[in-house]
Amino acid sequence: MHVLVIDIGGSHVKLAVPGGGPRARFDSSPTMTPDEAMSRIRAETAEWTYDVVSLGFPGRVGPTGPTDEPGNLGSGWVGFDFTAALGHPVRIVNDAVLQALGAYQDRRMLFLGLGTGLGAALVTERVAVPLELGELPYDGDGTLMDRLGHHAIARDGVESWAAVIHDVVPRLQRAFLADYVVLGGGNVARLDRLPPHTARGNNDDAMHGGVLLWREIVEPHDRDASPFWRVVE
Amino acid sequence: MHVLVIDIGGSHVKLAVPGGGPRARFDSSPTMTPDEAMSRIRAETAEWTYDVVSLGFPGRVGPTGPTDEPGNLGSGWVGFDFTAALGHPVRIVNDAVLQALGAYQDRRMLFLGLGTGLGAALVTERVAVPLELGELPYDGDGTLMDRLGHHAIARDGVESWAAVIHDVVPRLQRAFLADYVVLGGGNVARLDRLPPHTARGNNDDAMHGGVLLWREIVEPHDRDASPFWRVVE
Repeated sequence: MHVLVIDIGGSHVKLAVPGGGPRARFDSSPTMTPDEAMSRIRAETAEWTYDVVSLGFPGRVGPTGPTDEPGNLGSGWVGFDFTAALGHPVRIVNDAVLQALGAYQDRRMLFLGLGTGLGAALVTERVAVPLELGELPYDGDGTLMDRLGHHAIARDGVESWAAVIHDVVPRLQRAFLADYVVLGGGNVARLDRLPPHTARGNNDDAMHGGVLLWREIVEPHDRDASPFWRVVE
Repeated sequence: MHVLVIDIGGSHVKLAVPGGGPRARFDSSPTMTPDEAMSRIRAETAEWTYDVVSLGFPGRVGPTGPTDEPGNLGSGWVGFDFTAALGHPVRIVNDAVLQALGAYQDRRMLFLGLGTGLGAALVTERVAVPLELGELPYDGDGTLMDRLGHHAIARDGVESWAAVIHDVVPRLQRAFLADYVVLGGGNVARLDRLPPHTARGNNDDAMHGGVLLWREIVEPHDRDASPFWRVVE
């Protein structure tokens, strides 16, 4: 089965059929609607061969798709019929979850995506939990998003931004009882060195995650996938 | 099946066989060892009828029991054989997880235990995730534990402590994408009013959670309980 993976970010949309298949990317914009995005994706992939689609969405996702309009794109994403627009079965998860699934090795991992915003997901023992850690307090009335989002690099300088990462990542690792942290997203390349117990994500994590989404997941968001409660470590 | 539930806290140990059975409690201490605790529990429950045991432990727990010595008790808890000491099958989880399971209604819940320390757990779609949110940054170099632990009430006054709760709970609710927050632990009684989307836990949450631990959980910490990945909402 071939999977078309679509990673929709605040700056770019990346497309690939992982495993040696074709790739493409185009810029996104603060006004991009799903109609515009899907129309462009259909054009880019018209000659591509694939069976199903995995889509990483930069916002909250429920069982039937996005539940909130994305902060960095246009509107119309909630309730949009992606399966009809692409003509193939589509599984949608939060974009940080897509990258985190691809980056996961074992035990308990906290993923932070240093992109336009601050993506986050906790992955542990075959459960992926999307988070919005940009909302956490930092520096009095401030938030982590204020200090770690893309705009903070231009405003505060890369050294100040990196200092916040070195302060906060070990504290988040402890708070989430994470065995390790993976830093992904485009801005991780701006970090010269990493906090302890931290690894860089790879550019292809989202693509790998998109394949896992069809290969190893029964169904994202399936409340009835397990009839029993489970406490994770 | 009758469950003996043991909730080991930094101030008290509570015992009960929920569903109309007997109850008892005794004080814990910063030097209490598991030998001392189990000996006292055997004495208190000598005439009680029960089949299995659920134990809430104030620290991190793995598949074979506590993985770290508790901050507010004596030592010897890691590697201790609770099943041998009590003569019945024992399931152990973090104490905040025990209370959170008992308090859970539906959707995504963040539980905060305002006791000697600051317990925390995220519960969502039949998965319970223990957390150590006391490690999160607050006020520069400070942590949430500094401002929300039991000692902060004496040091800062109850109004200052309550103001931190009203500041931080809505931010945590957003960061964890929680539909609601439950505040448990002995100190919640000191809060006159609650933040939005927040409910008080009940004294019996841990006892109810202890029963669920045997009735609805296949096995806590069972990595193989689900053969497939799942993304929760």
